[in-house]
Amino acid sequence: MSKSVLYFSMSVDGYIAGPDDRPGNPGGDGFDRLHRWFVPDGKRFARPDGAAGELYDEMQATGAVLTGRHTAEQAGHWGGDIHGAPIFVLSHHDPSPAAAAYPLVRYVKDGIVSAMEQAKTAARGRNVMVHGAVTAQGALAAGVVDELAISVVPVLFGAGRRLFDLLPARIELEVLRVIDTPEATHMRYRVR
Amino acid sequence: MSKSVLYFSMSVDGYIAGPDDRPGNPGGDGFDRLHRWFVPDGKRFARPDGAAGELYDEMQATGAVLTGRHTAEQAGHWGGDIHGAPIFVLSHHDPSPAAAAYPLVRYVKDGIVSAMEQAKTAARGRNVMVHGAVTAQGALAAGVVDELAISVVPVLFGAGRRLFDLLPARIELEVLRVIDTPEATHMRYRVR
Repeated sequence: MSKSVLYFSMSVDGYIAGPDDRPGNPGGDGFDRLHRWFVPDGKRFARPDGAAGELYDEMQATGAVLTGRHTAEQAGHWGGDIHGAPIFVLSHHDPSPAAAAYPLVRYVKDGIVSAMEQAKTAARGRNVMVHGAVTAQGALAAGVVDELAISVVPVLFGAGRRLFDLLPARIELEVLRVIDTPEATHMRYRVR
Repeated sequence: MSKSVLYFSMSVDGYIAGPDDRPGNPGGDGFDRLHRWFVPDGKRFARPDGAAGELYDEMQATGAVLTGRHTAEQAGHWGGDIHGAPIFVLSHHDPSPAAAAYPLVRYVKDGIVSAMEQAKTAARGRNVMVHGAVTAQGALAAGVVDELAISVVPVLFGAGRRLFDLLPARIELEVLRVIDTPEATHMRYRVR
């Protein structure tokens, strides 16, 4: 069965993006620091050794991506391709002509629940990767998140954009797995 | 050598206290949830089994406590006794008559650096436990924190008081230890 999973690299103080996050500086100052565990040179993905490598493989094997328009546009729609998976973009608007031209990018305008259903169907039994803090929290609030995969990076950012800032209520989790590496502590939670 | 250690139980979204934190409701709504791993009935401390028990023992063995006036007053100065350790309270004011009567409570008015020096001296080689979010962040900003012991509890709070909200700059950490239990993931970091 397809599961929806939030994948995020987060500082110990809860930031997933640094300050001054904008199109010319995607992810803000220090964004590379959070992703060094699988993008060591700040440019190319590199599979880590050991158990973190299995997490990396799992991320690469997700069957669909669900994200918001802000994140998608900030990232230039990933050039239309995230490891070949269909990309569902939650939006109130039509896609730009550039985005509309990508065959794997589909804009969804009827809300997060429908978007997740479509993404799960498209994932054909594989997992749906949720991208972007606003979409992640909207999905949590709507009850359509199955698991959280949070890679906690040993740094205090002090400023930037937090993963969690918009949750309307308390949500209980269950620890499924902890991968302990010097680069990050990879937490896996199930939403109860 | 005496080390200064921040001990905190924190939700996955970074909260160490719930909403409506006030004298009649110390720690706010849901505070018990964060401390269930060593206060399972919400009243009495209970040493957990396994590796978390060693963390518990270590907390009980700290040689001095450093805290702020808000936290100290909120907690009624712990009745003047935290496992027999001297309690240093950082304040701009003199203690209340009740606080001044506790032999182990000492108010320090000349700043966090001096307070930490005094606490380390009083700890006689044992560690100094730092209590309270404001004091913790002040100590981090002043560079007088050696380690962070953060017990991450598998719950999203959505609201309350965060541990980290006031840091003036990025601070690099090193993962020293991870204790993986169903009740909490006990992270230990060294400040670089």
